[in-house]
Amino acid sequence: MDERMRVGITQGDVNGIGYETILKTFDDPMMYEFCIPVLYGSPKTAIYHRKALDLQTQFNVVASAKDAEPNRLNVVDCNPEEVHIEFGVASEESGKAAFLALERAVQEYRDGLIDVIVTAPINKNSIHSEAFHFPGHTEYLEDRLGQGNKALMILMNSSMRVALATVHDPISEVAGKLSVQLIKERIAVLHKTLKQDFCIEKPRIAVLGLNPHAGDGGLLGKEEEEIIKPAIEEMAKEKIQAFGPFPADGFFGSGDYRKFDAILAMYHDQGLIPLKALDMDGGVNFTAGLPVVRTSPDHGTAYDIAGKGIANEDSMRQAIFTAIDVERCRRNEKTIHANPLRKLYFDRHDDSDKIRLDTARE
Amino acid sequence: MDERMRVGITQGDVNGIGYETILKTFDDPMMYEFCIPVLYGSPKTAIYHRKALDLQTQFNVVASAKDAEPNRLNVVDCNPEEVHIEFGVASEESGKAAFLALERAVQEYRDGLIDVIVTAPINKNSIHSEAFHFPGHTEYLEDRLGQGNKALMILMNSSMRVALATVHDPISEVAGKLSVQLIKERIAVLHKTLKQDFCIEKPRIAVLGLNPHAGDGGLLGKEEEEIIKPAIEEMAKEKIQAFGPFPADGFFGSGDYRKFDAILAMYHDQGLIPLKALDMDGGVNFTAGLPVVRTSPDHGTAYDIAGKGIANEDSMRQAIFTAIDVERCRRNEKTIHANPLRKLYFDRHDDSDKIRLDTARE
Repeated sequence: MDERMRVGITQGDVNGIGYETILKTFDDPMMYEFCIPVLYGSPKTAIYHRKALDLQTQFNVVASAKDAEPNRLNVVDCNPEEVHIEFGVASEESGKAAFLALERAVQEYRDGLIDVIVTAPINKNSIHSEAFHFPGHTEYLEDRLGQGNKALMILMNSSMRVALATVHDPISEVAGKLSVQLIKERIAVLHKTLKQDFCIEKPRIAVLGLNPHAGDGGLLGKEEEEIIKPAIEEMAKEKIQAFGPFPADGFFGSGDYRKFDAILAMYHDQGLIPLKALDMDGGVNFTAGLPVVRTSPDHGTAYDIAGKGIANEDSMRQAIFTAIDVERCRRNEKTIHANPLRKLYFDRHDDSDKIRLDTARE
Repeated sequence: MDERMRVGITQGDVNGIGYETILKTFDDPMMYEFCIPVLYGSPKTAIYHRKALDLQTQFNVVASAKDAEPNRLNVVDCNPEEVHIEFGVASEESGKAAFLALERAVQEYRDGLIDVIVTAPINKNSIHSEAFHFPGHTEYLEDRLGQGNKALMILMNSSMRVALATVHDPISEVAGKLSVQLIKERIAVLHKTLKQDFCIEKPRIAVLGLNPHAGDGGLLGKEEEEIIKPAIEEMAKEKIQAFGPFPADGFFGSGDYRKFDAILAMYHDQGLIPLKALDMDGGVNFTAGLPVVRTSPDHGTAYDIAGKGIANEDSMRQAIFTAIDVERCRRNEKTIHANPLRKLYFDRHDDSDKIRLDTARE
């Protein structure tokens, strides 16, 4: 059996740079050595983009991922009606097309036809409808494929992984959203994903402070003392290595971020400013915490450069590689723990801990 | 007359890395081509540090900056009593010594004996007393030499200048501190300092948003629409070029910060995270808005490495150069505008604008 991963890629907004980044990525034959790509979109739309952007990428129209062939960019037609394309313009039609592609990918994932999902950027206003009432992909997938698990947004590039304690909250509401419980949950999911999805045996997590100078001992804010420190200490009892809270400016200035496997930032800009400022290649967005592995490039539809042929596909390529790596690591992890040895209890201090090979498997 | 600037340098906390950075800076004979340095501190303390750190820097003890000689590091003894030095330890004694040096520098600045002030880092807890009840140097100098002007904290390195709308406020209070009036004031001082102190004729100022995605049209916070945009628009009426509000993460990710002469950040970490993350050399803190030119290195006392000989003096050197550059620019600016030509009114559309050489000077 072909061991290459089947990577489902949703077309995203057809008036943005999604198709351009996908077509450019798969213009490189080397990509097919790593995966069997399945693009959820429309052959007609793909042809339109290919022509408009003067690209050569060949593709293979299939009815479903079941028929996907190796060494080809397989395209599943999710959109029986023709979609009118207008570069850089938000339209209801493009929103509907993006939604249909997503739904189809979710269905085929459920049917076991694809292994991971990579999403091209959508326009949140266009896609918004009764059926799609989510702030973004993350919440949509949490709803559709989460099985009750909470998603954690992780953004990463070659130099760091950043998870966000709060995401799209106004600054005035950030402090109020933080609680010991929330920070603990975020650290726990982050710890689990580092072990399970990134094969890091003993993950080291850095937790940032909320306030300037991480509150300076309470002088510049109390959340570090009252919320963040207690959460870190409670996690330590569960043998989870989280450190901090660190003053965010010094943390990134000193290069200390390189010493940790991931960083938990308290709010959007605290994590994304340094991530993007220090990004030397393409950043990737990974939705941790869900049964499905989903990644996306870290850029949006980029309407301002749509159709001009100047979009950079690095982030899309990186998103595909990351999805494959994560899924592979997760499978290995499962294999390793599938048939664990029974725990052996040895004789110590007293009789109660004698070796008992007859205990039930835990 | 010697045209080199007389740079007053305060010793800061004697148990930190201040002396080390100063002595290392002036171990380079080239420094004396640019300035006549006057160190407000103590010869005994200087000798102690020189010996402990195995440095060779020579200096010249003087009673006051009046006797300062060129091509020497002049040291004014501000501390008749001997100061016990213990590297890396906060002490009342070291706080007092730091304060006496500051007071002496302020007095000699008032007497016209020095041109600019560069401050080595203090320990805020040690220096705190009835006489020094300020959060830091900036507020102290605003009080002593401000003449009623408001100070604006600017941090800079070779790639950007960042001013802060709010400085040491907990995140939960930042949004409440912002007002149209405050943003306007900050932009006005920033504009003035860019013209007067950095010789930028038509400064371009970038203003960051407060919320994620700069509020996304009001969905993620209202301060951009209600406070920041109106302030920018009102400044435009006064012919001050301010742009934004920009989403902070994208602004630093795209490199757009290079296109502006300065950036106004809404809060501490928003400005200092990217500044420090992208800092390739030494950062400098400049107190804008006051009659006196004051700079400092962007690091603290660094007790953890004090006395080890491994402190880097780049930021101190850069602070000295910046103070000299700013003072020189400010003087040129004054010279240029000392005897302006009277405004000439030329005949345009109607009779009212005819040339009038008899109008009073404005």
